[in-house]
Amino acid sequence: MHAERQLTAIPGMGASPGRVEDETLLRGKACFLDDVPVPDALHACFVRSPHAHARLRGVDADQARAMPGVVAVYTRQDLFGHITSWRMPLGFPLAALPEDTTPFALAGDEVAFVGEAYAVVVARTRHEAEDAAAAVQAQFEVLPAVADCRQAVRDDAPRVRTELASNVLQDYTLAYGDCDAAFARADIVLDDEFRVHRGCGHPMEGRGVVAMLEAATGMLTVWSSTQMAHELHYTIAHMLDQPEDQLRVITPDVGGGFGAKFMIYPEEIVVPAVARALGRPVKWVEDRRENFLTTIQERDQFWRISVAADRDGRVLGVRGGFVHDHGAYTPQGTNVPYNAASSMTGPYVVPAFSLHVQVAYTNKVPVATIRGAGYPQAAFVMERMMDRLAGAAGIDRLECRRRNLIPPEKIPYTKPLKSRAGVPLVIDSGDFPALQATAARAIDYDGFAQRREASARAGLLRGIAVANSVKPTGRGPYETARVRVHPSGRIVVHTGALAMGQGIKTTLAQLCAAHLGVEPQAVEVSAGDTGLSGYGMGGFASRQAMMAGSAVSEAAAKVRDKALATAAAVLGVDAGELTLSQGEVHTPDFAKRVPLARLAMLLKGVPGYALPVPGDPGLDATVHFHCDAQAYAGSSHACEVEVDPLTGAVHVLRYVAVQDSGNLINPQIAHGQVHGGVVHGIGNALFEWMGYDDNAQPLTTTFAEYLLPTAPEVPPIEVIFQPSPTRLNPLGVKGIGECATLAVAAAVIGAVEHALDGRGVRITEFPLTPVRLAELLDPPALDTTAPSTNP
Amino acid sequence: MHAERQLTAIPGMGASPGRVEDETLLRGKACFLDDVPVPDALHACFVRSPHAHARLRGVDADQARAMPGVVAVYTRQDLFGHITSWRMPLGFPLAALPEDTTPFALAGDEVAFVGEAYAVVVARTRHEAEDAAAAVQAQFEVLPAVADCRQAVRDDAPRVRTELASNVLQDYTLAYGDCDAAFARADIVLDDEFRVHRGCGHPMEGRGVVAMLEAATGMLTVWSSTQMAHELHYTIAHMLDQPEDQLRVITPDVGGGFGAKFMIYPEEIVVPAVARALGRPVKWVEDRRENFLTTIQERDQFWRISVAADRDGRVLGVRGGFVHDHGAYTPQGTNVPYNAASSMTGPYVVPAFSLHVQVAYTNKVPVATIRGAGYPQAAFVMERMMDRLAGAAGIDRLECRRRNLIPPEKIPYTKPLKSRAGVPLVIDSGDFPALQATAARAIDYDGFAQRREASARAGLLRGIAVANSVKPTGRGPYETARVRVHPSGRIVVHTGALAMGQGIKTTLAQLCAAHLGVEPQAVEVSAGDTGLSGYGMGGFASRQAMMAGSAVSEAAAKVRDKALATAAAVLGVDAGELTLSQGEVHTPDFAKRVPLARLAMLLKGVPGYALPVPGDPGLDATVHFHCDAQAYAGSSHACEVEVDPLTGAVHVLRYVAVQDSGNLINPQIAHGQVHGGVVHGIGNALFEWMGYDDNAQPLTTTFAEYLLPTAPEVPPIEVIFQPSPTRLNPLGVKGIGECATLAVAAAVIGAVEHALDGRGVRITEFPLTPVRLAELLDPPALDTTAPSTNP
Repeated sequence: MHAERQLTAIPGMGASPGRVEDETLLRGKACFLDDVPVPDALHACFVRSPHAHARLRGVDADQARAMPGVVAVYTRQDLFGHITSWRMPLGFPLAALPEDTTPFALAGDEVAFVGEAYAVVVARTRHEAEDAAAAVQAQFEVLPAVADCRQAVRDDAPRVRTELASNVLQDYTLAYGDCDAAFARADIVLDDEFRVHRGCGHPMEGRGVVAMLEAATGMLTVWSSTQMAHELHYTIAHMLDQPEDQLRVITPDVGGGFGAKFMIYPEEIVVPAVARALGRPVKWVEDRRENFLTTIQERDQFWRISVAADRDGRVLGVRGGFVHDHGAYTPQGTNVPYNAASSMTGPYVVPAFSLHVQVAYTNKVPVATIRGAGYPQAAFVMERMMDRLAGAAGIDRLECRRRNLIPPEKIPYTKPLKSRAGVPLVIDSGDFPALQATAARAIDYDGFAQRREASARAGLLRGIAVANSVKPTGRGPYETARVRVHPSGRIVVHTGALAMGQGIKTTLAQLCAAHLGVEPQAVEVSAGDTGLSGYGMGGFASRQAMMAGSAVSEAAAKVRDKALATAAAVLGVDAGELTLSQGEVHTPDFAKRVPLARLAMLLKGVPGYALPVPGDPGLDATVHFHCDAQAYAGSSHACEVEVDPLTGAVHVLRYVAVQDSGNLINPQIAHGQVHGGVVHGIGNALFEWMGYDDNAQPLTTTFAEYLLPTAPEVPPIEVIFQPSPTRLNPLGVKGIGECATLAVAAAVIGAVEHALDGRGVRITEFPLTPVRLAELLDPPALDTTAPSTNP
Repeated sequence: MHAERQLTAIPGMGASPGRVEDETLLRGKACFLDDVPVPDALHACFVRSPHAHARLRGVDADQARAMPGVVAVYTRQDLFGHITSWRMPLGFPLAALPEDTTPFALAGDEVAFVGEAYAVVVARTRHEAEDAAAAVQAQFEVLPAVADCRQAVRDDAPRVRTELASNVLQDYTLAYGDCDAAFARADIVLDDEFRVHRGCGHPMEGRGVVAMLEAATGMLTVWSSTQMAHELHYTIAHMLDQPEDQLRVITPDVGGGFGAKFMIYPEEIVVPAVARALGRPVKWVEDRRENFLTTIQERDQFWRISVAADRDGRVLGVRGGFVHDHGAYTPQGTNVPYNAASSMTGPYVVPAFSLHVQVAYTNKVPVATIRGAGYPQAAFVMERMMDRLAGAAGIDRLECRRRNLIPPEKIPYTKPLKSRAGVPLVIDSGDFPALQATAARAIDYDGFAQRREASARAGLLRGIAVANSVKPTGRGPYETARVRVHPSGRIVVHTGALAMGQGIKTTLAQLCAAHLGVEPQAVEVSAGDTGLSGYGMGGFASRQAMMAGSAVSEAAAKVRDKALATAAAVLGVDAGELTLSQGEVHTPDFAKRVPLARLAMLLKGVPGYALPVPGDPGLDATVHFHCDAQAYAGSSHACEVEVDPLTGAVHVLRYVAVQDSGNLINPQIAHGQVHGGVVHGIGNALFEWMGYDDNAQPLTTTFAEYLLPTAPEVPPIEVIFQPSPTRLNPLGVKGIGECATLAVAAAVIGAVEHALDGRGVRITEFPLTPVRLAELLDPPALDTTAPSTNP
């Protein structure tokens, strides 16, 4: 739809100026949630359930209230009237879900996972609040807990919450084509089962909330480390019955989100309610243990899958299903299992498809979107099956994939499925075989045999694999950017997009700056401040460069046009003779010049005088960039590993990520995003495991138990951008953030299995820890399809 | 330009629902500046010059700083760096005025009028601040002061400020046609001199400022009792170098403005600067003495005028000039003398015209716009000359006027003059002879003789007069309205217009409510809050119903259209089948219905889902209504008085105001505006005198010395609206606020002179106090053209 604009160069694209964030971030001057300067804030500590499932018979806070420094202890009934709606609203309120699905701001008479809060202590210091929280006495009647979603779906399973009629929240089949016929005429039919384990988002900075009521204005200001400031604004106004314009949500510097902050948490409601009730600022900062106990997690799925193919390895049909572990509540929606199901076929042509999805509650931390949001699970399953199909057909794994990839001449390619919003899934752009060819070349796929021999001489097993993926990016419906030049000359961008460390402020500043003839450092970007940006969506689904970038670019172009027209009127020259640089509009010889600041002053309006040019006041433009379709970002990852058969250790030797992210705004930042995505994927593949015991008690609540990849575990990552620009936005950009994560587990595990070639080992789950790999190499009497309880 | 829209009925016009302000105002729940809930605010007291002109040799605040409760005392040098620009910016920065024209935020080494502030004390209480202010020791070297503008323009006059090259700020002649020829061929030539005295704006609530820095957000919130919140925002940002979006100016309830709050005062800069410097809230509330000493005043002009006419009383030319007393500084511009000069011919045809204007500094309170803003002076002079012309031509005063009024068939009528902004003066609409005929009928002009006889029998002198005027209303360039329905269902209007007691909130609420199918009480109007409305102009020049009313009406219509379109999509019906009432959009039978609140929630956007209708998010519309032309509002006032020749007392028996304000939005509020305007005019005509002695020391600094009309002095006022709607805005409305003031002094004084008919008395100035009238009736050896020093 923006085809003609593709042809012209867009200012600000393709450059990598220094990041505007670096001055504050690198010098320790950033303002993360815990740095918000409210020195007189009280400290909140939440009192949380030690049980995965229990009835709450009563809470006695008298002893806690009498403890030093304690200002107040609130249970749900103490906050009656301060919170007018106890059930958190569904983040995606268009989903047809039952009313008993979402969490509570505070638990009332039942708790459904370990860590669920049922009271909050407010005290002068965090230490005093924690001590008092430990003194709150609750009477629990322990109820049976469900830890395994496969158990949850059984008719005889205990209910995860007593209010539930069933533990199965959703049960549906996505299908097209004639699977029975495909399987009937297949030369090859392969069946397998896969398991993907839970992990966390693990931002360096956990969640946190500060809230402050300013009595003179009635303004309730809430700072939150969030990915969705505007939705939080809406939710607080709704649940606290706070007038919308007496509420401001400010997003300070955010130390990572990764999807875990893309929802509204109970603490974000309770802390403002308590601050408003007390008339004093209140702060809560999540500690790491709370992050493990209460911040959403993802990935847990059990798949069984069958692939039918002809003798040449061409897929005829895919069928199967999975059970999705949804945790105890639905904080946001059910898009993760839908994403997994609807993206199962990835970049491949699959003529017939049928997948049965069961979304099951368990007494565990609620599941929502973490980087990838369902897509990595599907990519893992599909790519593992591709490897098996190559083997069954007796062809090379890359050749097998090539035969099945959607050919470039069929793009745009409409999958016979719809998004959860009912929109057709159209792969708008891309050249998947070309991406794979580049990956193979870059990793020297053809020269692998010699390298394998070299490793073997050292007693090590060497493997190589390539995995493909494609992800729709840039979810709508819109993102907002306001570009405003103030009479002081300050240039500001207000956006509903969120900055969480990914460099979006630089990305947006450079687009704006290029239009206005200034350096990116001259542009202030305010992200996720509802007091400054009226509407906004936030940071999710690899959307911000596309949506906010396009909005900023279009708004800045409008401001530029207005500056030129106004300067032309003021200077008495034709706008075509003018240009912008150094904060001025001027003729090329600078003989006539006027600062942007002066133009802004004139355009604010002077009582009784006409504006210098007709139109709305202000050197100012707001654009809500809309796009309901998504741009498909493909990738082909190649990976080479060495496995030490004695220890089970996996050493990733090389990693090549070929990405199609369309046009690049800031290549350096784009590289950084891919690095992060690959590292996240390596963590998923080899390290990260969020464990629960059979009673749904968490087993991993510190980074000593839950392993993240650190620098020594991460190989050099070679990033190659091979763009097929989208026409869905004027910049031709596609998302990056999540796209580099999808193929990683498949590539790494594929390479490991390839290293073990000839030993009959099938790897069907991740993370693949050394212990687990050692088990696979020297199997005890274990069923490898069962969940590993101690990877 | 909006001709076609005139033909359709505009929702919300012509009704007088109860005022939405009344619930708070009448029950004492309003929040005026002094009520702003900042309980921990420090109190500021300004230290002011006792001299009309002096060099300031030094200030010793040590003793004051040591006094109880004192937190700080600031002179200009103490605030170095906190205020980065000391000279107040010119309110109308397009005027070509010298740089030495505007006041200082605090005086430095010179003071130029009694009351000019040179230091500020901040203390725990106002009492402590006042005590300490009295202890600040200043060394003054008294300089000669200029009290009379006629003296100021002389070459040998002392300079009002030592930095001035001349006391004459402006000296120009407005002219068209051939005056010499007109006077040469005239049958009648009349010469006279007139004097109009100074008065104040005297709102019930004086000025006041509260400022507060919120450390956590860096937000500097400033409440001010102002008529121009957005200009104040700009000025504070500029003078304090405060980032524009870390500044919010809030206008609380305002207890009257009358033009006196339509400028930026030094206190509005110093109080925020001090609050920011101290990091503590600071409040300053003007007391009445300060209001007399420092709040702008108006009217002071000395006119000499000649009128040339043919023997039938038809004016051939007008020439003359006036000296305008400008006070010590130019806080805002020089529009008052320009208004007076350019409007001198009023609603009359004057073929040739020449007027010499001298704008002269004096060591008195600066002069800016007070209700009428120069027009009442001109109307007084012209109408007095019309009375004299009738006498000279031997025709009735109304007939003389009728012969000279612009006939309706010549309208639109372009005067051969331009506004100070360079725009042609086009009387766009009106029927002046019809207004006068209505006034004459209503007051029974023809039956006056019998009534005069009845008075005479009681020993009283009865007089009658009619005076006409016309005023351009609705100055541009624009006014802003944002109409927003929140997901809570709250309907809010944010506007840059200012509510100062005139009922504008009701006016705007009823326009919005009618479009959205709710009661006016369901619409919240936020006026003059720069945190909620990005741009705005404010309240001046009888503009708000026209400019803000049109903006609200258009914005509300857009919101209505969006609500209908969205509801149609949601309900699956055609928008034409839907209507709005009771906060819902519904089919006529209510079988299908959806609340506005639900539509607002859907339109804010849900991540990943298309908006229900294409377009920008939000049930929300912002309109900047533009108009650079002005709508001319005519009036014809008739007045009948009795004069007691023994006491000089004037009793206004009847007062008829026939007004053309175009279409009326709220007739009750329109009537109230006319009542206020007439009372203001009666005060000007008979009571209000701001006296200074020869050293420019103020003589009237309390309401015991400065007289305002009270209920017994005010007659029943009969208001008749006779509309000629304008086509300059979609509502067809014209301004009201000032228009009823212009003709009043002329009508009252004309009636008094008529009462004295046959005694050879010419009344050439106002106010006309009983003492002055007694002098005129029994004149001592006085020159009546000289200023009365004790009226």
